[in-house]
Amino acid sequence: MATIRDVAKKAGVSVATVSRVLNNKGYTHEDTRKLVNEAIKELNYKPNEVARSLFKKKSRLIGLLLPDIRNPFFPELARGVEDEMQEQGLHLIIGNADEKTEKEIDYLQTFKQNNVIGIITATNQAETSYYDNLSIPVVFLDRTTISHPSVYADGLEGGRIAAHEIIRRGSKRIALLRGPVEFQTAQDRFKGAVDELCKANVDFQVITSSFSFHDAEVMAKALFEKYPEIDGVIASNDLSAAAILHEALRIGRSIPDDLQIIGYDDIPLSKLLYPPLSTIRQPAYDMGREAARLLLKLMNKKPIVENNIQMPVSFIERQTTRKVDKNG
Amino acid sequence: MATIRDVAKKAGVSVATVSRVLNNKGYTHEDTRKLVNEAIKELNYKPNEVARSLFKKKSRLIGLLLPDIRNPFFPELARGVEDEMQEQGLHLIIGNADEKTEKEIDYLQTFKQNNVIGIITATNQAETSYYDNLSIPVVFLDRTTISHPSVYADGLEGGRIAAHEIIRRGSKRIALLRGPVEFQTAQDRFKGAVDELCKANVDFQVITSSFSFHDAEVMAKALFEKYPEIDGVIASNDLSAAAILHEALRIGRSIPDDLQIIGYDDIPLSKLLYPPLSTIRQPAYDMGREAARLLLKLMNKKPIVENNIQMPVSFIERQTTRKVDKNG
Repeated sequence: MATIRDVAKKAGVSVATVSRVLNNKGYTHEDTRKLVNEAIKELNYKPNEVARSLFKKKSRLIGLLLPDIRNPFFPELARGVEDEMQEQGLHLIIGNADEKTEKEIDYLQTFKQNNVIGIITATNQAETSYYDNLSIPVVFLDRTTISHPSVYADGLEGGRIAAHEIIRRGSKRIALLRGPVEFQTAQDRFKGAVDELCKANVDFQVITSSFSFHDAEVMAKALFEKYPEIDGVIASNDLSAAAILHEALRIGRSIPDDLQIIGYDDIPLSKLLYPPLSTIRQPAYDMGREAARLLLKLMNKKPIVENNIQMPVSFIERQTTRKVDKNG
Repeated sequence: MATIRDVAKKAGVSVATVSRVLNNKGYTHEDTRKLVNEAIKELNYKPNEVARSLFKKKSRLIGLLLPDIRNPFFPELARGVEDEMQEQGLHLIIGNADEKTEKEIDYLQTFKQNNVIGIITATNQAETSYYDNLSIPVVFLDRTTISHPSVYADGLEGGRIAAHEIIRRGSKRIALLRGPVEFQTAQDRFKGAVDELCKANVDFQVITSSFSFHDAEVMAKALFEKYPEIDGVIASNDLSAAAILHEALRIGRSIPDDLQIIGYDDIPLSKLLYPPLSTIRQPAYDMGREAARLLLKLMNKKPIVENNIQMPVSFIERQTTRKVDKNG
């Protein structure tokens, strides 16, 4: 592997000159720059990133904080971010904070110590002031905040659509699952659904549920024991919808004739469930891409038209909901 | 934030001395070391990782290469690696290579340039010699190779068990899905199943399938059109099993009475399918942990008893397979 010394020798200049050219700092004559760049190309010299980042106090690393990559919504987000960054020659340090403030702060510290040039966070238990103090551009992803640049899907609208679609398809006694209270996005979709349910002439129950696989199973069992009369479920995410669907079929409920279910997220497996899950789609991959683009603009100090990018959601009609009446 | 200069001032020593203590290099009197460490503690000084890594030519970063984090098997692996590394104060740069040699090599280059101190790779399209030339400790994960340290599950045995269980539960005309030919692990489970099928008095079909969501759906439709008579499917992974299950129910096959299905992996969603999927479990999270431990030993030059760690697989009996006959 060629070193900076080899480049300097080949170009007939000092190491300091090569360094100036590499980092685009200080004065170098155009001819010299040309010589150096030719030598770099010829020797296929790859500058050591750490040395460069120390010199420039910059790396080519982006920190990405997630709640938990095992939740099938987040791999989509992460790939969106990665694919956009990779096209710019930037790479990701990823951390899962498990919604724990301590882990979140620990990772932010790590990002800082590794001189990341930007951060995308899909979790923020920590006070947002903590992010401000880092002096690194930050984009919040899948988190609603007006105080900071952010990319998120329209949860209020998503909740409204879910409730609207299940009501117009005839459910009268509806269970509304509420995701973890500390997630702003979960609360948005919850509030949207409540607004819509309140407007209609239907009964509804609110059941709080976590987003984990295990809890979803337990919750599903309890739901039908406690409320056997329900004829519609608006789930807090596709995971809990899958658990509800599973339990409903196990106890002999007929889907969608006797019970309708609407999920939230549209994770890849939802269409492989049986019956395939009707759900509210969040464009996870595109949200990741969009957050990366916004961060790139911030880092490059480019003009930003919209600091808070709200992405659209949509109803994906599959077979856990009935067809709409012609009169519906 | 305290700097190395603040520490030096507080301890009444030179910056070079603080650096020697930090990096445990060169001679420092015990009393001096004590003074420096007290100053570090008191000021809550966090050394800049990049500066340290340049000095020591070391970082606290590990490179983790995956095929695609969106395949639900890999988030489990990745969390296992991350959790073990995090306990050691090490962090991950993650890259998805999409089984493309070019992306794989690009990421390895990035890892090298960021002075990662170790690499775990769950993909290796590139020649293994490429890894050797990096002069960085490498562990192959979910990849069978005797030439390099590795952690993988016993695919041959997994395939054998799958075939054994479906045969003893009475399937006679079996479709065996074969994963991508370029995956050693997919081929191992395939070969194990073929061995077992050949020993028994059953008919079987081999169908090659990819590991992607979309392809699984297409393959499932084609399978039942071409081979309507099959009464058992040994899938190449849980994803393709879910697609088969979905299609089988759609066309009115009765599971497991009329058709049995066995998956592979035991991804978290498999138990939420309906009926819940019988499958061969690979201990993905533990495999990640084990790979991290092996890499840590390699990096610390600790004695290694076993360079190639084979993890056990097991049959998870759920409801896409029939109960075993008392005579079975």
